[in-house]
Amino acid sequence: MNALLDGKDFENARRRVTPVLHRTPVLSFRTLGDRIGAPVWLKCENLQKTGSFKVRGALNSITCLGDRERARGVVTISAGNHAQAVAWAAQRTGTRAVVVMPERASRTKVAATIGYGAEVVLHGTAADAFREAGRRAEEDGLTFLHPFDSAAVIAGHGSTGLEIDEDLPGDKTIVVPVGGGGQIAGIAGAVAGAGAHAKGPADRASTVRIFGVEPEGAPCMRRSLDQGRAARLDATDTIADGLAPPMAGKLNYRYVAEFVEDVALVADAEILAAMRLLLTRAKLVVEPSGAAAVAALMYGRVPVERGRTIVALVTGGNVDDDLLVRALREGAPWP
Amino acid sequence: MNALLDGKDFENARRRVTPVLHRTPVLSFRTLGDRIGAPVWLKCENLQKTGSFKVRGALNSITCLGDRERARGVVTISAGNHAQAVAWAAQRTGTRAVVVMPERASRTKVAATIGYGAEVVLHGTAADAFREAGRRAEEDGLTFLHPFDSAAVIAGHGSTGLEIDEDLPGDKTIVVPVGGGGQIAGIAGAVAGAGAHAKGPADRASTVRIFGVEPEGAPCMRRSLDQGRAARLDATDTIADGLAPPMAGKLNYRYVAEFVEDVALVADAEILAAMRLLLTRAKLVVEPSGAAAVAALMYGRVPVERGRTIVALVTGGNVDDDLLVRALREGAPWP
Repeated sequence: MNALLDGKDFENARRRVTPVLHRTPVLSFRTLGDRIGAPVWLKCENLQKTGSFKVRGALNSITCLGDRERARGVVTISAGNHAQAVAWAAQRTGTRAVVVMPERASRTKVAATIGYGAEVVLHGTAADAFREAGRRAEEDGLTFLHPFDSAAVIAGHGSTGLEIDEDLPGDKTIVVPVGGGGQIAGIAGAVAGAGAHAKGPADRASTVRIFGVEPEGAPCMRRSLDQGRAARLDATDTIADGLAPPMAGKLNYRYVAEFVEDVALVADAEILAAMRLLLTRAKLVVEPSGAAAVAALMYGRVPVERGRTIVALVTGGNVDDDLLVRALREGAPWP
Repeated sequence: MNALLDGKDFENARRRVTPVLHRTPVLSFRTLGDRIGAPVWLKCENLQKTGSFKVRGALNSITCLGDRERARGVVTISAGNHAQAVAWAAQRTGTRAVVVMPERASRTKVAATIGYGAEVVLHGTAADAFREAGRRAEEDGLTFLHPFDSAAVIAGHGSTGLEIDEDLPGDKTIVVPVGGGGQIAGIAGAVAGAGAHAKGPADRASTVRIFGVEPEGAPCMRRSLDQGRAARLDATDTIADGLAPPMAGKLNYRYVAEFVEDVALVADAEILAAMRLLLTRAKLVVEPSGAAAVAALMYGRVPVERGRTIVALVTGGNVDDDLLVRALREGAPWP
């Protein structure tokens, strides 16, 4: 089994990806913090290039390829944000990109992926699309970029954790939405894992606790922790399309098992209410997957220590108009 | 006639207000910039405390009061954002605040103003409400805080200009929505006026051009420039409630006449389209008034020099749900 990434790996990935990405703001969210008794900050990856955090992992994956692999091109599978991220990163590096998306993928995300210049193939369910991407990799000689379960993706996402740690040094709790687990693995690895050991004695004294959040209808990392190995789901049912891959990443699971406190679950109605609160009070457009961490804090799904800094990842803002309207109309007002 | 504020006045105001406010992010907006051929940045005052830029002027106004004035309390008039700003600043400084709002004020803004602890009086049109606020000041011994036409307000808003100039040094064009003109006066005074002269020789070489933007249905600063003195409007008709006071500020007009290149007009339909673009592509919730500068850039209402940095003020995000839905449903997609 491969060793986990160390501090140097995360720093190298950061140097590769962040110069061309946004340093996303960390905004204080008093409305929520005052209610739960702890200062809450939002790390706004919805304001990242391509509208989601995924571009960090995708760009690192492509820049890590050899010249011959890059010349042949890449293929990937995604319900949307990773699709846009790979398309953007491929365009930027002059690489051919084929993106297989499930037939029910958000129209906004399909259109944006095509807009960034990728060849999009709509194909069946998420599981079907995974197989189709694998087939195309084999037949067409393309390099398969896994959307979440790879060291390059994890290393890229570590940059988010390093930015948070710089902007809000010291003790804190970081709450991260979990789909396949690439982002939480990267943040946990960079901040609670390798990063922590690589730092000087002063920093080592600070504690960072990391919690994951999944939708009730797609609890694959929760199930992985319960059964002690990366789980696979036969079906998923959630409004949070970005958090519903059919399996947890095997490599990601190792980071979660080692460095993450726990993984909580939230209901779709709680996610809608969080989208509404973010729209009306934080003035941010956030997609369902991106609102899961805030939902968990609103509804007490993760433990809150009085006065201890909390950072909620707001991971993406790519959402169809109809769903935004639905959040405004149906999202429960938070008293 | 009083002298205009100098660089030191603006620096002092900045020191008074910014420590308790957000340093709002300046975000690049490629979707718009690529289309118009110049890098566009958004100064996100919708992410400011109370959801709008107004808190800078209100807080400076209250902190400039003497102890006796502050002990008696303040009264102001506002359609919304200044109302919330005064309420917030008063609560923070332990000052009584009476806020007169026009009867048609946004319910969201009324509720938020009450939420910050102010006594709210709903009264007639904007012009009626102005008179009512004056009457209450006289009868109840409260200090009248003008929503836009005062040196303290202008000095407070100068802080926005100083932040922009730090984050994006060098030549640039700044585009600012104009209601009574307090914000544009402050930005122009601090950056193109006093601020520029107070700087060293290297900085003096850089040029900052400032444009104002008003709704077609409330063109009071445009009319002021045309007739050579601060104008008054008999009636206004625009979706941008924050840009529709019945008159331009007299003091503000002096700054605009001296330091602002021009004031352009935008149609309500253009504002709706800008709200939609900001929601869907910048992932920001912006109220109609706050979207006017972006609308002007989208529809060519202000001149754009190829490659020259543009900063669009995004001034507020306090908007009723129905209007957000309307922007999504009716805002013209920008091709």
